[in-house]
Amino acid sequence: MTLEAIRYRPGRLQILNQLKLPHQEEYDEVHGSTDGWHAIKDMRTRGAPAIAIVAALSLAVELLNIKTSDQAEDVAAFITEKLDYLVTSRPTAVNLADAAKKLREVVGSAAKAEGSDGAAVVRAYCEAAAQMLISDVADNQGIGKYGAEWISKQAGGGQVSVLTHCNTGSLATAGYGTALGVIRSLHANGSLKRAFCTETRPYNQGSRLTAFELVHDKIPATLITDSMASALLRLKGPSERIAAIVVGADRVAANGDTANKIGTYQLAIVAKHHGVKFLVAAPRTTIDLETKSGADITIEERPGKELTFIKGPRFDGVDLDLSQVETVSIAAEGIDVWNPAFDVTPAELIDGIITEIGVVEKGADGRFDLTFAMEAHNESIKPTTIGGL
Amino acid sequence: MTLEAIRYRPGRLQILNQLKLPHQEEYDEVHGSTDGWHAIKDMRTRGAPAIAIVAALSLAVELLNIKTSDQAEDVAAFITEKLDYLVTSRPTAVNLADAAKKLREVVGSAAKAEGSDGAAVVRAYCEAAAQMLISDVADNQGIGKYGAEWISKQAGGGQVSVLTHCNTGSLATAGYGTALGVIRSLHANGSLKRAFCTETRPYNQGSRLTAFELVHDKIPATLITDSMASALLRLKGPSERIAAIVVGADRVAANGDTANKIGTYQLAIVAKHHGVKFLVAAPRTTIDLETKSGADITIEERPGKELTFIKGPRFDGVDLDLSQVETVSIAAEGIDVWNPAFDVTPAELIDGIITEIGVVEKGADGRFDLTFAMEAHNESIKPTTIGGL
Repeated sequence: MTLEAIRYRPGRLQILNQLKLPHQEEYDEVHGSTDGWHAIKDMRTRGAPAIAIVAALSLAVELLNIKTSDQAEDVAAFITEKLDYLVTSRPTAVNLADAAKKLREVVGSAAKAEGSDGAAVVRAYCEAAAQMLISDVADNQGIGKYGAEWISKQAGGGQVSVLTHCNTGSLATAGYGTALGVIRSLHANGSLKRAFCTETRPYNQGSRLTAFELVHDKIPATLITDSMASALLRLKGPSERIAAIVVGADRVAANGDTANKIGTYQLAIVAKHHGVKFLVAAPRTTIDLETKSGADITIEERPGKELTFIKGPRFDGVDLDLSQVETVSIAAEGIDVWNPAFDVTPAELIDGIITEIGVVEKGADGRFDLTFAMEAHNESIKPTTIGGL
Repeated sequence: MTLEAIRYRPGRLQILNQLKLPHQEEYDEVHGSTDGWHAIKDMRTRGAPAIAIVAALSLAVELLNIKTSDQAEDVAAFITEKLDYLVTSRPTAVNLADAAKKLREVVGSAAKAEGSDGAAVVRAYCEAAAQMLISDVADNQGIGKYGAEWISKQAGGGQVSVLTHCNTGSLATAGYGTALGVIRSLHANGSLKRAFCTETRPYNQGSRLTAFELVHDKIPATLITDSMASALLRLKGPSERIAAIVVGADRVAANGDTANKIGTYQLAIVAKHHGVKFLVAAPRTTIDLETKSGADITIEERPGKELTFIKGPRFDGVDLDLSQVETVSIAAEGIDVWNPAFDVTPAELIDGIITEIGVVEKGADGRFDLTFAMEAHNESIKPTTIGGL
């Protein structure tokens, strides 16, 4: 019963248009890399892992539906150029750049192989892109499992509640989710008392998408505004046994500093103030050892109108009219706006980084060592699971 | 050019309908206490001091427009009953209960006076209610002056920036404002670099009302979401010289614990984490020595639909259609919502309480002593200004 955000079979890609959620489930056809670029730029598809997969698959669809050259080198050059273009759709997302890099390597190797031709390069690319989709679900199930075990152990067993931010679920990944995968796993184990989710201004991914997934999966859940997190921990923390705030990541630097949806850093401060664990759930593809710390991460600033206007189906006081989506102004005209899409949470505020091979905690020196977690990663596109760290 | 939120002359009261702001300036006639009760309950008028004044004046209008008894005792009983009713419109606002208490005393004294009659009691009530309006503006100017001086002194002079929450301006008071009065005063002195305001979910008083006032008064200002406060202090704190977060109060307890708009407590935690001063700006009518601490304050929980629906004029992609105000859904259907209207900020997170007679700081014992600040207050409805504490 889990919603599919990405539907793929060779030659055909459909994505759930997330701008129409939670009220309408509408799939958009993605015919090639240009469609893929726009789907990412327009935020019809979103979430760091999903962005990488949609970009990769959009090009796979294009390659299978156009006449490509017979020459391996020509096809490799074409793919490389298209990958460079796709990366420009969302420059902050490291998964996308990372996926493009690996796919370029796959294509480079395929082109150089003995007796290679254009068709062989296309085939190698499409297989690698399709594998990313399959691997992502498996990775998220691993994240869910390790995160749930860690939280339950820290809380001394019994049912616990968790607060999450933004959307990191089936709608942001190929399925299951990262931070929301941890919540799904706790729920599946009978260990979840309640999930709390922030609405996640200004784009309301929490109230629109995460709330939609939680209702869809019948997980006991409560929505709050971003500003209520502190009051929640103070007033309901003990009675609801709120054991952790779990968030996703757009990029984790080598030292553990984490770029994620705006508001994440504030939640980390709030967690620390209340003595609640703060966890980042992210596949290792999100960890970028070449980014030494958060200081090296560029924060994307988005247009102010994303904050001063909001869109949704019209409510006439009794019913929602799903056919009539309106945009309304929710701010004074003429006001200047600052709208950073992400913020960076320093590693010192993070208790653990939940990956598909285990939860990375700080060492005796108070620092994360992410190189160990990444070792297997550098050997192949899909490393073997090596067990909990 | 400052906007008037409350227009009063004997026998006539008009309030600016704040639900129509920032796009339309529409005044509603308030013909009596029933209109006043509904204006407060519906949030067409809002802010702790304004609520008290509108309630008091709504009854004054009623008394001047109906035929009252000739008997002093009958009129006093009528007024007392109406005041009890008005207080039920917004139970958390101490100013309202406080104003009602004082007005009952005024009426009680007038009724007992030698040779009193019904007309004398009406006259005494109306004069006292009208005086509240006049006093409130003077109080706010005092708050602005002392707050601005304190912040400038702490920052070592020069231009500073300030972050504020919710609306505490001309629209929440009889004029000038409390926390926004401090910003107005800094600006008037040439000491304001920039005002930052949160949008203040779920009711968006910041983006609708505070942003409107700041644009109206041509004060350099930038709007952020509630979740961006931490990123703002981290990324822009030094360059913008953000010296303080200044908020209003719905109620200040005897120990300094402060009930204010939801999200205030979170901002106080954020201020502490970043070493930025956190100040509460409130007239002494907001201080309630009978409330020992925040633990004694009941938090009003409001309907979830205030969070999952939002209203504003329709935007067609080019223009705003002010005649077409739409309500749209911004959350998944079926999600449970927690919507506390206020939270309590513990005194330990507050650096100073700015009143109309000066800024109260903590003593050597790390505690606020608000009894001294309140001494003059208990002597009369409008205490003489005694200078900065």
